[in-house]
Amino acid sequence: MQRIPVGLVGVAGYTGMELCRLLAAHPELELVRVTSRTEAGKTLGQILPHLHETGLAELVVTAPDTQDLAQACKLVFLAVPHGTAMDLAADLLRKNVRVVDLSADFRLRDPETYSQWYNLDHRHVSLLEQAVYGLPELYGKEIAGANLVANPGCYPTSVLLALAPALHHELVNPEDILVDSKSGATGAGRKPSTATLFCEVQDNFRAYSLGRHRHTPEMEQEIGVLSGQQVQLSFTPHLLPIGRGILSTIYARLKTTASSEEVHALYRDYYAQSPVSARWVRIQTPGVWPETRFVRGTMYCDLGLLVDQRTKRLLIVSVIDNLCRGASGQALANANLMLGLAPDMGLPVAPMVP
Amino acid sequence: MQRIPVGLVGVAGYTGMELCRLLAAHPELELVRVTSRTEAGKTLGQILPHLHETGLAELVVTAPDTQDLAQACKLVFLAVPHGTAMDLAADLLRKNVRVVDLSADFRLRDPETYSQWYNLDHRHVSLLEQAVYGLPELYGKEIAGANLVANPGCYPTSVLLALAPALHHELVNPEDILVDSKSGATGAGRKPSTATLFCEVQDNFRAYSLGRHRHTPEMEQEIGVLSGQQVQLSFTPHLLPIGRGILSTIYARLKTTASSEEVHALYRDYYAQSPVSARWVRIQTPGVWPETRFVRGTMYCDLGLLVDQRTKRLLIVSVIDNLCRGASGQALANANLMLGLAPDMGLPVAPMVP
Amino acid sequence: MQRIPVGLVGVAGYTGMELCRLLAAHPELELVRVTSRTEAGKTLGQILPHLHETGLAELVVTAPDTQDLAQACKLVFLAVPHGTAMDLAADLLRKNVRVVDLSADFRLRDPETYSQWYNLDHRHVSLLEQAVYGLPELYGKEIAGANLVANPGCYPTSVLLALAPALHHELVNPEDILVDSKSGATGAGRKPSTATLFCEVQDNFRAYSLGRHRHTPEMEQEIGVLSGQQVQLSFTPHLLPIGRGILSTIYARLKTTASSEEVHALYRDYYAQSPVSARWVRIQTPGVWPETRFVRGTMYCDLGLLVDQRTKRLLIVSVIDNLCRGASGQALANANLMLGLAPDMGLPVAPMVP
Amino acid sequence: MQRIPVGLVGVAGYTGMELCRLLAAHPELELVRVTSRTEAGKTLGQILPHLHETGLAELVVTAPDTQDLAQACKLVFLAVPHGTAMDLAADLLRKNVRVVDLSADFRLRDPETYSQWYNLDHRHVSLLEQAVYGLPELYGKEIAGANLVANPGCYPTSVLLALAPALHHELVNPEDILVDSKSGATGAGRKPSTATLFCEVQDNFRAYSLGRHRHTPEMEQEIGVLSGQQVQLSFTPHLLPIGRGILSTIYARLKTTASSEEVHALYRDYYAQSPVSARWVRIQTPGVWPETRFVRGTMYCDLGLLVDQRTKRLLIVSVIDNLCRGASGQALANANLMLGLAPDMGLPVAPMVP
Repeated sequence: MQRIPVGLVGVAGYTGMELCRLLAAHPELELVRVTSRTEAGKTLGQILPHLHETGLAELVVTAPDTQDLAQACKLVFLAVPHGTAMDLAADLLRKNVRVVDLSADFRLRDPETYSQWYNLDHRHVSLLEQAVYGLPELYGKEIAGANLVANPGCYPTSVLLALAPALHHELVNPEDILVDSKSGATGAGRKPSTATLFCEVQDNFRAYSLGRHRHTPEMEQEIGVLSGQQVQLSFTPHLLPIGRGILSTIYARLKTTASSEEVHALYRDYYAQSPVSARWVRIQTPGVWPETRFVRGTMYCDLGLLVDQRTKRLLIVSVIDNLCRGASGQALANANLMLGLAPDMGLPVAPMVP
Repeated sequence: MQRIPVGLVGVAGYTGMELCRLLAAHPELELVRVTSRTEAGKTLGQILPHLHETGLAELVVTAPDTQDLAQACKLVFLAVPHGTAMDLAADLLRKNVRVVDLSADFRLRDPETYSQWYNLDHRHVSLLEQAVYGLPELYGKEIAGANLVANPGCYPTSVLLALAPALHHELVNPEDILVDSKSGATGAGRKPSTATLFCEVQDNFRAYSLGRHRHTPEMEQEIGVLSGQQVQLSFTPHLLPIGRGILSTIYARLKTTASSEEVHALYRDYYAQSPVSARWVRIQTPGVWPETRFVRGTMYCDLGLLVDQRTKRLLIVSVIDNLCRGASGQALANANLMLGLAPDMGLPVAPMVP
Repeated sequence: MQRIPVGLVGVAGYTGMELCRLLAAHPELELVRVTSRTEAGKTLGQILPHLHETGLAELVVTAPDTQDLAQACKLVFLAVPHGTAMDLAADLLRKNVRVVDLSADFRLRDPETYSQWYNLDHRHVSLLEQAVYGLPELYGKEIAGANLVANPGCYPTSVLLALAPALHHELVNPEDILVDSKSGATGAGRKPSTATLFCEVQDNFRAYSLGRHRHTPEMEQEIGVLSGQQVQLSFTPHLLPIGRGILSTIYARLKTTASSEEVHALYRDYYAQSPVSARWVRIQTPGVWPETRFVRGTMYCDLGLLVDQRTKRLLIVSVIDNLCRGASGQALANANLMLGLAPDMGLPVAPMVP
Repeated sequence: MQRIPVGLVGVAGYTGMELCRLLAAHPELELVRVTSRTEAGKTLGQILPHLHETGLAELVVTAPDTQDLAQACKLVFLAVPHGTAMDLAADLLRKNVRVVDLSADFRLRDPETYSQWYNLDHRHVSLLEQAVYGLPELYGKEIAGANLVANPGCYPTSVLLALAPALHHELVNPEDILVDSKSGATGAGRKPSTATLFCEVQDNFRAYSLGRHRHTPEMEQEIGVLSGQQVQLSFTPHLLPIGRGILSTIYARLKTTASSEEVHALYRDYYAQSPVSARWVRIQTPGVWPETRFVRGTMYCDLGLLVDQRTKRLLIVSVIDNLCRGASGQALANANLMLGLAPDMGLPVAPMVP
């Protein structure tokens, strides 16, 4: 039986590599094009020796060419930097190819916010309306009908899934939310730099981009949608000496007198009614706090909740695998939805622990 | 459709956890019993929170009971220490259940060698003849007909797959082989001890059990079978500050004038004719040296080869995932073979890199 | 010349080991007694092979005996668990030996708070008044005259040094402070447990003790002293896959309109007027954010500051080495002060980077 | 009192950083010049924020200028790549400045071997005779009188100290020695590259430069001197996911019937008679195997020995800190000797464990 042909622009980075891992085992999608400006001409097995002798090994890397991609593929994943992605997306959409964009180019509805935070004017403003924010639990129906999906940022994925039920039920004050996030180093990409060398990251921990990380407006936008009001979010990202994984510790001022049990129940019910059939958001048992390894290699978002009566805050600990749920796995789930497949098709069932 | 019921004795250790990961996604086997003396009464989701809300979460852990296991299961995996496994195996076999034993109890054909290296008399000597050494590429046919499979040790798996073609073709002198192996810390098990605390292992590296590691006679036995002569092997294991992975660097005195290209070809051909259809042993392209991550989470054994004319030695670098190929994945492959299923059923296709 | 004899109760844990490292190079203090219930009879070189053939190697470990300690030592460091330390301290003080207690037993002024958070009644309430909280920059003069110093907790050290200038100058609202801290695994001690095994900590990250960590009342007490009002602090600790190091990210609601430059200046001035001559608190250049490695092996506390106009919060990033500044190094600095020596005598000058 | 002025060419790499750490605490040497082509004009505190507010912080980085270095310094450390170092050394020697060269440029006595392994013709052959190989235990007297010291490679340091007593006493056959070494990633330098990114090194292990590492001829040269015969060495380096540390596992064919106890005694005696008064080589107690952390931050070389009667081999495990003993610490010890100071002046006493 014929599988659906898909393409991947930008195979040499970590999100590209993760998509290869997932597509290698997908029963209905076939990766027929992989592109990379720097690696064109080599086979995938040559540039990624861990794929040697797998089904993807002989696929030849090409230079990105939208004409060729459009002829060969029904859907294309863009795993290239913001600024580069928007033109490719526009071009592919014009040629009737569906696009899942892993960059930030179509996440912000407001082009002015985009230019302010990314120091770049948006060149395809008309597409912003058409783009669907690819968080399946919140926008599952819209994704199913979309031609262009803006795959969410890794930090926003971990934060929005954690806050959605609380905001929906008005358990917390949206104006007093504070997010302290910690990410594994795959989030920093595969481009060589001194700051991401092994000897600079291992046995070390640091904060970065304080007060100015680009995922801030993305979270503010979606918290705004969920709460119906504009908010200013305190968000601080940190760099963990691990490969995969994001843990966000979220502090929100309580507006409710609901007990911890009631809050747990509201969270469980919220996700039981999610438009996607997959049950990726797991509310952990009270007293069990999510760890990044609990979700390694999967689409799970594990949440731990505490109603802290002492400080009148709701504490939420949220973990995802930044490469899988925070990028390529979510992109594949979105592709599944766009192509009418089961949302969790080709996605790992059990996390890799240890 | 009914899946084949299987059981797992010893779920709380790392090999038990890895079997759960793999069985959670297996299309034809159903895990119906998991046992642990210390955790009996809890659900699997309670003792392993990363399995919360997966298909295995509600399975209740029981105390090991061969009567119950025999009634419920067609095949049982033993993931308990040597010494404990042999009695359970004997009991289960008597009750007509097939057994894959992950311990060392049935690996050595000679009970005297067993008692000498394990300081323990073997209580089921008669079963030693019946047991098949579970290395699929070497004993695939015998495994398919076995009731009792002795799953190989992690170090021997990495070493024997690396040496088999060279010994078969008499490329090297079996009396002058030296193995320097390095293993991730999952190989040390999950029992609490000062020596395996995070702060003792991280940012550190050490050798251990010099001149007396228990996998030595196992390798000597199988090298003896492959070469037709008795050998003494120099084997030194080391503890790596990583979770999964074994890399063995093997030095063997050359007996051949074959070129590097010819040796690569002989290796490729040897495994192309393996009795199992799965192609898990990958001869990497000359110049590409295997890294432990290339095989993470999979059954692959990657080999790098160098005919070193300067020192007249064949150098082999061999990597496996010690938990998957070196233990639970290989156990599952053996179970597949014993039950007439495709050998690679339920085993991951692509390694998790990064 | 005779050096001053000191003793160490509890040499086998990480704080004991760190004190040995520092005392091995101290020009004026001589370690003459080391005790450990479990290791008594062995030499220090035997139980800590990294000290083999150093000046401390031949020191014989004894069982703790206050009579013997009092005869041999002028000052004793207690590196034993809370609950055990208080009786030893009382006994040693009675015998006219000065004590630096690294446990929590004398940190809280209020015995009721102690029993509430530590589930233990304090057996030496009268000593609480006498004990000085051993944070040299805040209590340098009192420490110099003390017989009993309560060495601060590691988290409180990182947090109080970060907040003292802001509270002193009333830059922030003491009732809206939130502390998100991350600690290396040495903070969890050296006692074997599954949760601190290498394979459970590496490539992983988690929060713990949410809403109920025992360092919370210690910080609330000292913030109370600094601000003149009782406060409730939101404090969440996390476990980092590194050995040494704490990074605290602190969010405090601004009460001032001071610019970022002014705040930096106030911080620098505050510590320039510290009662101890050592200059351990370093205000990093704006834009340079402290990393845990910047202070590895030393007494430094590095601070990064941001006046975040968007969210009206003061953001402070504070790093210390939890074993040196957060425990044994600070204990040694306190001993130096108590014995009339220069506060930084025997303490490393430059951090170990990389 | 005036300290002796010294300079450092190449401050931005890891060996330069390590020299800064050590010189910051040296009582008799004063670092008065640090150079870096890329960082000239900034202060040391700016490019290395962990030195912020230390005594070295205000030192301004200059572009390398031998005229200026010669005027300001009595001795200069060269921490630049091979090929670059030789011209600087020649120039400085001409200007009567002593030189400790941390590169490989003056380690090999034979210029042809140099050009063969380094693909570069030596431009200062006449200096090769004058250069002393800076391994203090073997060449302590020559170093004391030298103007040019070739600081040994990190791997050779760990291997030669391990083999010297065995070769001196003819315990082993110099023609059948095999060295399997593992190094921390600081050995790979600080230049950005994909292969040394955190996400490529962590949770991974690999061999590299099989059969062709440039430290091979250096070891062969010195083994030749020690044994009086030309040898071919099997040497395989590997990359460890740790910062500092080398562990070499050495296998040598026994020529002696000496017992393990006798071999231990011969080793201890050999180093007791070393020309340097410092006792850096520690023969660990039989049964205690050296770990890389045992020597972290120090000049120690710890050795573990086993006479393996089964395989007729002497097994030696040797560990050093590749940055301290294997590079900058050894360079400082050599400088101490050249300047008539105690060899261990300014070098740490106790390793940093944990």
